[in-house]
Amino acid sequence: MPGKDIGVESVAFHRKNRGKLAVASKVDCGNREGLSLAYTPGVAAVCMEVGKNPDAAYDLTCKWNTVAVVSDGTRVLGLGNIGPLAALPVMEGKAVLFKAFGGVDAFPICLSCKKEDEIVKAVENIAPSFGGINLEDIESPKCFEVERKLIERLDMPVFHDDQHGTAVVALAGLVNALKVVGKGKDAKIVVSGAGAAGIAIVKLLHAAGFSNLAVCDSSGILVDSEKLPPYKREVAKICGSEKAGSLADALVGADALIGVSAPNIIGEKEVRKMAGKPIVFALSNPIPEIAPDEAKRAGVAVFGTARSDLPNQVNNVLGFPGIFRGALLVRAQRISEGMKLAASYALAESAGKVSKDRILPLPFEKGVVGKVASAVALEAQKSGGARLRMSAREIEEELAKLGIG
Amino acid sequence: MPGKDIGVESVAFHRKNRGKLAVASKVDCGNREGLSLAYTPGVAAVCMEVGKNPDAAYDLTCKWNTVAVVSDGTRVLGLGNIGPLAALPVMEGKAVLFKAFGGVDAFPICLSCKKEDEIVKAVENIAPSFGGINLEDIESPKCFEVERKLIERLDMPVFHDDQHGTAVVALAGLVNALKVVGKGKDAKIVVSGAGAAGIAIVKLLHAAGFSNLAVCDSSGILVDSEKLPPYKREVAKICGSEKAGSLADALVGADALIGVSAPNIIGEKEVRKMAGKPIVFALSNPIPEIAPDEAKRAGVAVFGTARSDLPNQVNNVLGFPGIFRGALLVRAQRISEGMKLAASYALAESAGKVSKDRILPLPFEKGVVGKVASAVALEAQKSGGARLRMSAREIEEELAKLGIG
Repeated sequence: MPGKDIGVESVAFHRKNRGKLAVASKVDCGNREGLSLAYTPGVAAVCMEVGKNPDAAYDLTCKWNTVAVVSDGTRVLGLGNIGPLAALPVMEGKAVLFKAFGGVDAFPICLSCKKEDEIVKAVENIAPSFGGINLEDIESPKCFEVERKLIERLDMPVFHDDQHGTAVVALAGLVNALKVVGKGKDAKIVVSGAGAAGIAIVKLLHAAGFSNLAVCDSSGILVDSEKLPPYKREVAKICGSEKAGSLADALVGADALIGVSAPNIIGEKEVRKMAGKPIVFALSNPIPEIAPDEAKRAGVAVFGTARSDLPNQVNNVLGFPGIFRGALLVRAQRISEGMKLAASYALAESAGKVSKDRILPLPFEKGVVGKVASAVALEAQKSGGARLRMSAREIEEELAKLGIG
Repeated sequence: MPGKDIGVESVAFHRKNRGKLAVASKVDCGNREGLSLAYTPGVAAVCMEVGKNPDAAYDLTCKWNTVAVVSDGTRVLGLGNIGPLAALPVMEGKAVLFKAFGGVDAFPICLSCKKEDEIVKAVENIAPSFGGINLEDIESPKCFEVERKLIERLDMPVFHDDQHGTAVVALAGLVNALKVVGKGKDAKIVVSGAGAAGIAIVKLLHAAGFSNLAVCDSSGILVDSEKLPPYKREVAKICGSEKAGSLADALVGADALIGVSAPNIIGEKEVRKMAGKPIVFALSNPIPEIAPDEAKRAGVAVFGTARSDLPNQVNNVLGFPGIFRGALLVRAQRISEGMKLAASYALAESAGKVSKDRILPLPFEKGVVGKVASAVALEAQKSGGARLRMSAREIEEELAKLGIG
């Protein structure tokens, strides 16, 4: 577990900076002329323009580039239900990453309500100011319905990053890891964890053409049954497992394990029963599903974690900045399955030459966000209800203007 | 009326800048170390710190300096009920003024709900992210109850600027105008308009010790009666007018008129029946209660408007940045009547040597916001539930650090 030191250091860092996020004015209104253009009397004409044509809000206000990072604080990091105020440092941090990596103006919205319909209503209520909604750290299964209803009601991208961000980056990592070990889409993939991330991963792998899938929750392999809650039943049907069993049973002969579940739930013994050259993504954070040294002893061919102090970090920051950048660029009305796949494949490609210790780029590498954003913006014109049409070249030019390489 | 030109120019200005507001990161997270301090794994310790002690959110997150500018778009400028999206250019502009003049990180929240209780609930829901709430352009009488309920439920400043901002600046202007004409607090003051601004002005003048007051709505002088809606009845009681009559009747012998009502409702004739050296603030915007040339012909001694192209602009921007700056500085839990009065008197004083063409400073003058903020921060420690204690000197030092002169 990352030691106390980084925590102590981080508290001091937050105290010194008095938080991480600020608001900035893009115009000078410190003189009479600026004031009369940015505010009264000039602004009245801008309001009337938007009143006549709502789409003009994307041209004349901050809406085009503004995303709400929304949480109710019920499932924050590995800390659980710590409430909206204690969740603010994470949401503020996410907003800062949106800006640093994607040039997106994101703002933390921590909600004091917790019921599904209250959250939906709260987000609907504030939607006019925003061009997109990033849901974050909302507990499962509530998160599924909150997202589904908001997607239905809002004409802007709504994206629960714990589900889809994780799935996009995990798929990209898997595609490259399979390349390293010389396997393909017929590989047997086991997903451990049937919460927000696990369910999204199964769905995205299925959409990507993987057909040999199994998913386990803490009771073992999910087999389709009326007793399962609907969100688990959906992925059980996708996987089609017919025989119940433990995670260890599922891993027999498997080519890859993607763990988004709990610390230390497998060991050397289980990995040794997987197929040759096994791939293991142990993404439970901060303590992975299997200790790194055990994975090494067991002969794991490609090992990924959520940690920044090991190679192959499978980190959402590789996904959401480019996904929203691309979606906002063409004013997409949703994040379609196709856009998630496009983001995954672009991210996989952006790693360049892959090896067992480099299946994904680092978040700081130039060009990663731009490649993901371009792919997403192009696909959004097919499946994402994009309000703007732009060629690949125009997208590249716009990204360059925004400083996204 | 300000011509079409400024409107056309303002639309072009907004289009060129693609809105006015952006988000800025105060920290560098474009490298592994920054990322681990600002986000995972370090941030978990910051969350736990706030979880243990909610007040730590003011030290460790953006909450201490963040204000929501909230509107439902039901009464925007002189444009009426244009809806939340069309209101966004104004709220974004207000946020920009908060930053430019007060160093406050304000964010526009345009609400798609319109019912009183829905607005209250919507603001309560998002309150954890903010250190204060500025209500804006919400129609009367709904605005009174929305504000009252939010003040009751939230432990942070809640301030409806159309009411109290206007009242604070009008009182400051009146104090200095009376100085110019050599009159005092026994002067007879008529307020024209019993909407949000008019009612707040009457209450604040009364709190400031003015005792000879009358208030008119579009039907004339308000006289206490069970037939009046409660918010009008309250000010009718304060004024104590016993005889009904028209605005013209009220003006006979009056020393000052403060108009926050409708264009061109009085003329030379009515002003000539006022007492000697009459003061007229014709704040209806963009068309004042009396045309400037008529006021001049009628012998008005001090004439103020809401317009920036005439002397004596009575403009809210002289109030809200300093008021919130002062309140946030000491973590006030409310904006008390005492803090509003302190803001008014500090603003009046900040004008320096006054004359008939200079009863208030211009918004761009150095020192104005600092003087208002200091007075508010000091008074907040007596009547505003300030969580921090600071001496006048410490306040000045903190303001200097924030770049507020």
